[in-house]
Amino acid sequence: MRTSYHSFLLGVIVVLICSCAQKKRPALVFQSDFGLKDGAVSAMKGVALGVSPDLGLYDLTHEIPAYNIWEAAYRLEQTANYWPSGTVFVSVVDPGVGTSRKSVVMRSRSGHYFVTPDNGTLTLVARSLGISEVREIDEAINRRQQSGQSYTFHGRDVYAYTGARLAAGIIRFDEVGKRLPDSVISIPFQPAIKNADTLSGMIPVLDVQYGNIWTNIPDSLLNAISIHPGDSLLVRIFHHDSTVFHQRIPFVHTFGDVPEGQPMAYLNSLLQFSVAINMGNFAAHYRMQSGPGWNVKLSR
Amino acid sequence: MRTSYHSFLLGVIVVLICSCAQKKRPALVFQSDFGLKDGAVSAMKGVALGVSPDLGLYDLTHEIPAYNIWEAAYRLEQTANYWPSGTVFVSVVDPGVGTSRKSVVMRSRSGHYFVTPDNGTLTLVARSLGISEVREIDEAINRRQQSGQSYTFHGRDVYAYTGARLAAGIIRFDEVGKRLPDSVISIPFQPAIKNADTLSGMIPVLDVQYGNIWTNIPDSLLNAISIHPGDSLLVRIFHHDSTVFHQRIPFVHTFGDVPEGQPMAYLNSLLQFSVAINMGNFAAHYRMQSGPGWNVKLSR
Amino acid sequence: MRTSYHSFLLGVIVVLICSCAQKKRPALVFQSDFGLKDGAVSAMKGVALGVSPDLGLYDLTHEIPAYNIWEAAYRLEQTANYWPSGTVFVSVVDPGVGTSRKSVVMRSRSGHYFVTPDNGTLTLVARSLGISEVREIDEAINRRQQSGQSYTFHGRDVYAYTGARLAAGIIRFDEVGKRLPDSVISIPFQPAIKNADTLSGMIPVLDVQYGNIWTNIPDSLLNAISIHPGDSLLVRIFHHDSTVFHQRIPFVHTFGDVPEGQPMAYLNSLLQFSVAINMGNFAAHYRMQSGPGWNVKLSR
Repeated sequence: MRTSYHSFLLGVIVVLICSCAQKKRPALVFQSDFGLKDGAVSAMKGVALGVSPDLGLYDLTHEIPAYNIWEAAYRLEQTANYWPSGTVFVSVVDPGVGTSRKSVVMRSRSGHYFVTPDNGTLTLVARSLGISEVREIDEAINRRQQSGQSYTFHGRDVYAYTGARLAAGIIRFDEVGKRLPDSVISIPFQPAIKNADTLSGMIPVLDVQYGNIWTNIPDSLLNAISIHPGDSLLVRIFHHDSTVFHQRIPFVHTFGDVPEGQPMAYLNSLLQFSVAINMGNFAAHYRMQSGPGWNVKLSR
Repeated sequence: MRTSYHSFLLGVIVVLICSCAQKKRPALVFQSDFGLKDGAVSAMKGVALGVSPDLGLYDLTHEIPAYNIWEAAYRLEQTANYWPSGTVFVSVVDPGVGTSRKSVVMRSRSGHYFVTPDNGTLTLVARSLGISEVREIDEAINRRQQSGQSYTFHGRDVYAYTGARLAAGIIRFDEVGKRLPDSVISIPFQPAIKNADTLSGMIPVLDVQYGNIWTNIPDSLLNAISIHPGDSLLVRIFHHDSTVFHQRIPFVHTFGDVPEGQPMAYLNSLLQFSVAINMGNFAAHYRMQSGPGWNVKLSR
Repeated sequence: MRTSYHSFLLGVIVVLICSCAQKKRPALVFQSDFGLKDGAVSAMKGVALGVSPDLGLYDLTHEIPAYNIWEAAYRLEQTANYWPSGTVFVSVVDPGVGTSRKSVVMRSRSGHYFVTPDNGTLTLVARSLGISEVREIDEAINRRQQSGQSYTFHGRDVYAYTGARLAAGIIRFDEVGKRLPDSVISIPFQPAIKNADTLSGMIPVLDVQYGNIWTNIPDSLLNAISIHPGDSLLVRIFHHDSTVFHQRIPFVHTFGDVPEGQPMAYLNSLLQFSVAINMGNFAAHYRMQSGPGWNVKLSR
């Protein structure tokens, strides 16, 4: 009887301790337009580690072009869903720092958390992952001590600090601050649409490293007008009213399916319609950029 | 009696193991002028992880301009205090590698450790955080095995290796090597001073990502001549003897307090006097750089 | 008797749990030509962390010039051996993504693992570390779920996923896929040779941050013709048939051994013959690059 009591006790202890030893290291992922040349990113990470040394600190990118909220929104959209549910993202592209824009944490329906100024950064993840709940950061509680005099580095004093406390379980989500309505500031953009046998959309971003053109037209719309790999497509690209590209090109599985130097269309890694030159730089060759003014039409 | 004895034993075990399971991951923070294009940073991290797989490895920056010891000093100063006490920094900007400059570890009064060539890199943290103790790295003990033939990569063979051993607790601080006098090599620079109602200082660094001008004039000196947000200030910037900027501009809380494109003065995230163009690049517009030859004067 | 039985049990439990609490965090090291400006690297890391939150994720470099397989091979060679045995490298420079090139994991004799397209990336580590075993990734098992429609991001869907599962111990090496012959695709290159008293070799890579010229001529060949620090050497550098540099320069221990601005030869951190200008940029000054067409000859 006493032996079995002890064995039971021992079993409980083993389970408890093993679960404590193997507890998940919570992930905190940083994004900003700070670049990697100065100490700003490091200061944010130091603050996070001061909150809890067990955090796993990661980077999305810190090379968002300065003040480019649209691109911050796009990079979150491009990657958030590849991270485990429960991951906390801290995104600091904050041209309005110190003004009346709200500091928020949005929980998506997928269980990801986004700590950011509510300035449009959440435009795309709110739409694709869905809003579960939005809370305004209460700086009376969730602000690094002795930081009250600095008005220009909320990334360090508010966002990194709050994100770290949330990821480490020091505060629960409802302790971030008061609940707001289930909506966020959104940047208007041209969605992808089908009009008879023509698809229209925009160029949200370039695949900068290779110069490929990415559009917001998903594979489902291509399927809707029965476009498949092997087809030849008429692709037109406009900057505002002027036509920048107007050519018939093959729609293929991958780069190697056409000779080097030849334009081609394909589905990128987000399964969106894209245009490239195999082993070349399409955007540089045709002098294209991305954003609201850059639109695309395609048809057979 | 035996039950309580066992319970006591079990309690001790739980406490011991839980503290072992939850022990802090020691933080090792790297800075260099190596850039991120080759394998040098990775080799340092591999060596550190070979010392102990439990280390948390982080970066301050590796984009210090080649050989720029002043900027290495500044980046440490800008960020060290945001990291927890006990953090070990490895800074490798080392134009004199292989010559007689000393390899040291400085412990600051704040409990941070700095592993670096003593070539001026410690100029600013020695002053701001205070020197607790300086020791010279004894390469007979604290040097990666089988690295004796390589004279040019002390960052990997001596600094990363010693920093990792210190952070992981494999050596105590007094095992780094013999104690040196409490001083480090310092780069001369113009400190911030008050002269009647005029403040003078220098531009230690640019806020490179945005083109803002940072000075070494602290908020306490502004308070001393009663300058407050809302005031208009006469700001003069000199490169050696020539005047590069001479204009009356508003001193405000934050960027959004002035219209886009307008010059303004503010306190940066280190609470130092700074100058910017809202949504613009001040340094590029007025062709300014930073360092010893760049000085600032301001008054009402 | 029962007491000693319990003590024994407790002892076993302590050992088991402590080993579980202190188990090594497996290291996964990423290399690519993706750059750091978009979300591609972050997506790979998110996938890896989704496989196991205990992984330690590190970077070799993501600034390999686009499609430059030779440089990917070189960076692995330059750094792999500084990482602990058992480290898993994921290298994604993959111009043939989606074509018939094989996806493999090579285990070296040193116990490192390399997850990569077999396109030449393994040229140098196969030679220097030795091939222990090569296996082809079986995408029926080792591919991220629901990724079957994307043909262009094997880095995320196959390589990061497989590397993470291997590093975390979720699959054993023999579960990667079927064993291949002990060979890999190799890029031809001019090896370092001795011909009477002249050494010949090539410039595999530049030390890009400083503009130094690195060659593939090892210290052992210099020893073989009795060249030592302090000697004066005749160094000739060719681009295909034209001579780009032809000068007698000193062979020294380190940069500080010659005046600023003066050319010099030295052994780099890999103990290979290298040429530099002290405090200057040799490659920029003489307009040199690296790769197959760039060859070197040296003699007394």
